[in-house]
Formats: sequence, structure tokens, C-alpha cells
Amino acid sequence: MRDVDFKVVYEGVMNQIKEGAFLTVRAGDALNTMTIGWATIGIAWRKPVMMVMVRSSRHTFRLIEKAADFTVSVPNGDAKKALAFCGTKSGRDLDKFKACGLKTAPGRNVVSPIIQIPGIHIECRIVYKNPIDPAQLTHDYDPLYPDKDYHTLYFGEIQACYEV
Amino acid sequence: MRDVDFKVVYEGVMNQIKEGAFLTVRAGDALNTMTIGWATIGIAWRKPVMMVMVRSSRHTFRLIEKAADFTVSVPNGDAKKALAFCGTKSGRDLDKFKACGLKTAPGRNVVSPIIQIPGIHIECRIVYKNPIDPAQLTHDYDPLYPDKDYHTLYFGEIQACYEV
Repeated sequence: MRDVDFKVVYEGVMNQIKEGAFLTVRAGDALNTMTIGWATIGIAWRKPVMMVMVRSSRHTFRLIEKAADFTVSVPNGDAKKALAFCGTKSGRDLDKFKACGLKTAPGRNVVSPIIQIPGIHIECRIVYKNPIDPAQLTHDYDPLYPDKDYHTLYFGEIQACYEV
Repeated sequence: MRDVDFKVVYEGVMNQIKEGAFLTVRAGDALNTMTIGWATIGIAWRKPVMMVMVRSSRHTFRLIEKAADFTVSVPNGDAKKALAFCGTKSGRDLDKFKACGLKTAPGRNVVSPIIQIPGIHIECRIVYKNPIDPAQLTHDYDPLYPDKDYHTLYFGEIQACYEV
């Protein structure tokens, strides 16, 4: 395990997030992971911050609404099958970890675990959230929301960023 | 002028934004620039997106609320004096461009101009905005808001990113 600066690894991280990364959330006894393809990273409130987005229709939404933190695991090897599975199946219906053979490892600084895969892992404490107000969103993005299940934006202060 | 991938130039851009960059907005005949030190960049709604934050107490806030777009000019040389000036003086009271000897150049794809300085320039069309809801913000950040002039978050779809 090696600490890395989010700015230095950003290009690789963002290129992989476009292909898929794991957003993992623990809330009490409940644990789930889902595939994300969008995120922004930078500095806000004088802190390194990562923003992720979760649709209200997602099982992860029920969890993250009760959670204090989340992790993003960005694989650097081939995780296509697990990413495709975790992006289409719901943790409501099955245990994604068992189904995909994914193992978790404890978070270093947060309650949510990481996915135990080679790659970059980003641990975040939720510091702000905003359920998208459709009135403030460009209508150009309407086709992304045929079911009106708008995302909530979760801003996480980065607590750890490391390569495994 | 040379087009650049925001992911490739991110590290330098973010290191400079920490020191200061120019956020420039035109709304009708009104034009202003201010210094920002925070931003996040990434992918959302399948598009490259940059988020900037403007406090409700800022002169730029009146403009950006009426504007369709903004630009961020990230200097790669010494712009400390102008950045300090534009971060502390208000466009309400004086013409910052005259006062700092800053020149603008037309935006390539947006109405707002860029600051004519060597560096990276990012042109953004506003696609979403969110006035911070203090009830959803961690109390750890209260010291940043002694006057309760919370930021509004502006999400801009990147229309152009280039080096001058």
C-alpha cells in the first residue's frame, strides 16, 4: 500500500472511472457496492474533495443516505465483468460480493470498506449532499432521466488516497 | 493556442487553482473576473464538467446568476499580484481589468471571455447550479461562513480547454 496524491494519479483514475469504478458504502450492518462512471475531484472548502452521484432508484441510495462515508475503488487491472455485474444488478436482490467473488478490506480512515483489488482507493467522509433540483438542470440532460430518478450529489472530503 | 485534454493537464491546473485562478463571467454588458481557489473537475452526465463556487456576497454572483457560461483562466506564469487584487477587490467598486492591466480575449465557444494570459483556459456552459443548503453541509465548515454567505455551486460542461 502506497499513499498517492489525488492530483498525480488523476488522469489514470478518471480514465478508468469513465470505464467504471466501485462505489462502496456501509451503513450499519448493510453493505453494498455499485459501479459508477461519473465523478469529479478537486479542492473545495480548503480540502481535497471527490463528488459522486447516486440515483434515487438505487439500492446504494438507501445506504448512502444513512452513511457517513463512502469509498471509491478504481481498478487498474481487468475488472470488466465485475463492473458490468455491479452496474446492472441490484444489491436488493443478491449479494454482489459473493456473486462476483469480490472481497472487501477495511477502510483505513472510514467505516466503509474498499474493494480488495489492485488499483487506486479513495476514502471519503461525506461533507455535503444535494439532491439534484431538476429545475436547475439543463433540459439537454433530460434523456438521462426518463424515469425522473435524479441523482443526489455526494461530496466527500478525501480521507485517504492510496494504491494497492 | 493548443487544445489539451483536461485530464492530462489536471495536476498543473489544480496546483495553480490552489494558488489562484481567474473566474470570468459576462452577463449582457456586464463583465467581471474574480480569483477562485477551489474547483472540481471530472465527468458527469457523460460530459467533462468543471464545478466552481461563488459566494452570494460576491459581485460576480449577480453576474453569473444571469449568465449562461463562465471561463476559468489558470495562469502558468506569475500572476500573483493580479490574483491577489482580484481576490480582494470588488468589481462593484472598480474595473478590475483596468486596475490590473488584464486584457480579455473572446471565448471560443462561450460568451464569457478569457483572461489573456499564458496558461490553461477552460470554457464552460452552465448546466446545473445549487445554492448550498447549510442544513446539508458539515458543521466542520462553519468557520468558512462567518457571514453565512454560502456559495452557489455552478457546474459547467467544458466546451473548450486549451493552452495559450
